Amino acid sequence: MKQSSIATPATDPAPIFELYRGIFATTLISAAVAEFKLFDHLANGPRNEVELANELRLTPRAGVVLFTALKAMGLLTSSSPGEIALTEISREHLVHGSEFEICAYVSQLSESEAVREMAERLRTSRPAGGKPQEKGVAFIYREGMPSAMEAEATARLHTLALAGRAKNVAPVLAERVPLTDAKLLLDVGGGTGIYSIACLKRHPKLRAIVWDRPQVLKVAKEFADQAGVADRLELIPGDMFVDPVPANCDVILLSNILHDWDVAECKQIVARLAPALPKGGRLMIHDAFLNDTMDGPLAVALYSANLFRVTEGRCYSAAEYRSWLAEVGLKCGDTIATLAHCSVLIGSNG
Amino acid sequence: MKQSSIATPATDPAPIFELYRGIFATTLISAAVAEFKLFDHLANGPRNEVELANELRLTPRAGVVLFTALKAMGLLTSSSPGEIALTEISREHLVHGSEFEICAYVSQLSESEAVREMAERLRTSRPAGGKPQEKGVAFIYREGMPSAMEAEATARLHTLALAGRAKNVAPVLAERVPLTDAKLLLDVGGGTGIYSIACLKRHPKLRAIVWDRPQVLKVAKEFADQAGVADRLELIPGDMFVDPVPANCDVILLSNILHDWDVAECKQIVARLAPALPKGGRLMIHDAFLNDTMDGPLAVALYSANLFRVTEGRCYSAAEYRSWLAEVGLKCGDTIATLAHCSVLIGSNG
Repeated sequence: MKQSSIATPATDPAPIFELYRGIFATTLISAAVAEFKLFDHLANGPRNEVELANELRLTPRAGVVLFTALKAMGLLTSSSPGEIALTEISREHLVHGSEFEICAYVSQLSESEAVREMAERLRTSRPAGGKPQEKGVAFIYREGMPSAMEAEATARLHTLALAGRAKNVAPVLAERVPLTDAKLLLDVGGGTGIYSIACLKRHPKLRAIVWDRPQVLKVAKEFADQAGVADRLELIPGDMFVDPVPANCDVILLSNILHDWDVAECKQIVARLAPALPKGGRLMIHDAFLNDTMDGPLAVALYSANLFRVTEGRCYSAAEYRSWLAEVGLKCGDTIATLAHCSVLIGSNG
Repeated sequence: MKQSSIATPATDPAPIFELYRGIFATTLISAAVAEFKLFDHLANGPRNEVELANELRLTPRAGVVLFTALKAMGLLTSSSPGEIALTEISREHLVHGSEFEICAYVSQLSESEAVREMAERLRTSRPAGGKPQEKGVAFIYREGMPSAMEAEATARLHTLALAGRAKNVAPVLAERVPLTDAKLLLDVGGGTGIYSIACLKRHPKLRAIVWDRPQVLKVAKEFADQAGVADRLELIPGDMFVDPVPANCDVILLSNILHDWDVAECKQIVARLAPALPKGGRLMIHDAFLNDTMDGPLAVALYSANLFRVTEGRCYSAAEYRSWLAEVGLKCGDTIATLAHCSVLIGSNG
C-alpha cells in the first residue's frame, strides 16, 4: 500500500469475484442433485424449509446456504413464507425421471474433489479442517481447533490473499461512513488493519485499535508502518469471545467478521461489544448482505457458500443483522454500499 | 423417452447448464493469474495472440479457449484484429504488484484439483487420460488411446449423462430444421440416436443411420426400440476417420461432434463427408457456436473450456464452420437456434 494514499480504485472488482466464485454454483447444483436429491423431495409440492433441511440432515446453516443459493439461481422459489418449491425450470429438468431431466448431466462432476468437498461440508456443517484427520485448515480461530490463523506462514498467506479485497474496499468504506466526529475506532478482528488504516488516513485526528490474533497483527504492524499511521494505531492481541473489550472506543467496526460465525456466536459477539459503546457510539457491520428475502443476490449467495466451506458462518441479510442489533438496544439506519458486493449497516447507541 | 412423443420442453435448460459450468470461470481465472501470469504479460501493452500463446507455451487450441473465455468475462479485449489487451478492470485488479490487485485472492484455489487439472490441460493441450498414467479417460474415441467410449459401462454412463441434454434439444432441432424432402439422414457419431429418433418421429417417411462406435450403438438400439422407430433406423458401427461413409444419404448431421476435435480433424471429417452428398444434399452442423468475433457468449466460452478438458476440441464460431464448409464446396445459410445454447448451420451441395 502506498504511503499516505487515500485513492479509491477506479473499477469495482466485484465482477471478477463473481466469476471466480462460479465454482460454487457448480458444486451446489451438483450436490443438490446427485447427493441430496433435493429437487426430488419437492416433486410432490412445496415443503417447509426447516422440515426439509431436517429430512436431508442439513443443519439450519447448511439449509440456508443451499436453499438461498438455489433460489438465487432460479431453481427454487418461496411459495409462501418458510416454504420452498420447485420453479418451472427445476421441475422440468432437475427431478429424476422427468421426461426432460438433466440430472445425470449435472452429476458428471459429482466425484470431483470440489463437489465431494461441498457435499461433505453440507452434510457435516463443519469447515474443512474442523476434524484433525481432514485435509485443510479452518480460516477462523477457535480455541482447540487447528486454524490457519495460528500458524504464522499460513496466517500470513491467507491474510495477504484476503487483503487484496480489503485494499479495494477499505478506502471506499473510509470515504462513505460518517467518522468526522469519531475519536477511537475499535477494529474487531481487523486482521491486516487495512480498514483501520484507510480510516486513519482519511481522518487525521482519528485513532484506532486493531484487536485480533497475535500472528495476524504482525501483518498489521507492517502495513501501519508503511502507511505512516503507526503512531495512531494500537495493536491489541486478544480473543473477542473471551477477553475484555478494549475500552474507550466510540466506534466499533466489524468488517467481514460476523460472516465467519454461526448465529449464536454472532449474537454473542454483538452482545459483548454493544455495552462497550458510550451513549451516541456506533457499531458498524461491514459485510456482503443477502437480500432480506433470502433469495439472492446470486454473487452474495455464492460467496456465502464459500464462507460456509471454510468458516462456521455464512452471509446474512441486513434484516438478520438489524434484528441482532435491535436485541442489544442499537438503532439502525439504511445500509451504505461500499465495493465488491459489500455494504455497511450502522447501529447507534441512542 | 416416451414412445412416439414429439413434445419439446417447455423451458430451455440453458440457464442450468450455464450455472453448472461456473467452475470453468473459476479455474480459467485462477490458472491465468496463478499459473500463467497472463495479465502480467499484457501489462506493457497489447500483444499478438499467437505470439503470446507461444510465449506462454499454449497450443493454438489452448490459447483460443483461454483468451476467448477471458474476453467473454470482460478481462481481455481485442485491441485490433489478432491482438489482445487488458481491460480497465483486469489492468487494475489482475496484474501482480498493482495497487488494487487481487491476484492472491483469486489464486486461493490454485492448489485445488479443479484448477490444477485445468492448468495441466492448458499446458499439455491433451484431454485427461491422454496419457496412461493420468487420471480419467477421454470422452472421445481415437485409435490407441484409452477412451470412455470403448468400455461398455463407462460408455453407457457417459452417453446417458449427455443424453439428458440431447433429449431436450433434439425435438427442437427436429422441429426447426428443413427435413420435409429428406430421405435418408446420416447421423455421424450420433451416439444414443436421440437426434435421429426425434427427426424420424417428426418425419414419418424419413429413414436414418446412426454411425458410431459399437458400444455406443447399444444404447441407440434400446432408445430406437422404445421410441418405436427401429424399423426406420439403421445402426452402423464405424470410425468416421477411416471407414467408408455410409452411402445414399441426402442429409448428414454432425450434432455436437466437431467440438470434440481440433481444427485439422474437423476439416478432415468435413472433407470426408461432403463428397458423400448428392447434388442438393445438405450437411448440418449442430453445435454451440462462439461469436464470430471470438469473444463470447460467456456460456459457450465456458462450455468450450469443458470440451477442451475432456476432448481434443473446443467450441467454434459459425464463421469457422462456414470457412470449412466453403472449402469443400458447400454453401451456408443463416444459423437456426435450437436450445441449450445450440444452433444449426446448414451447408448445401449446390
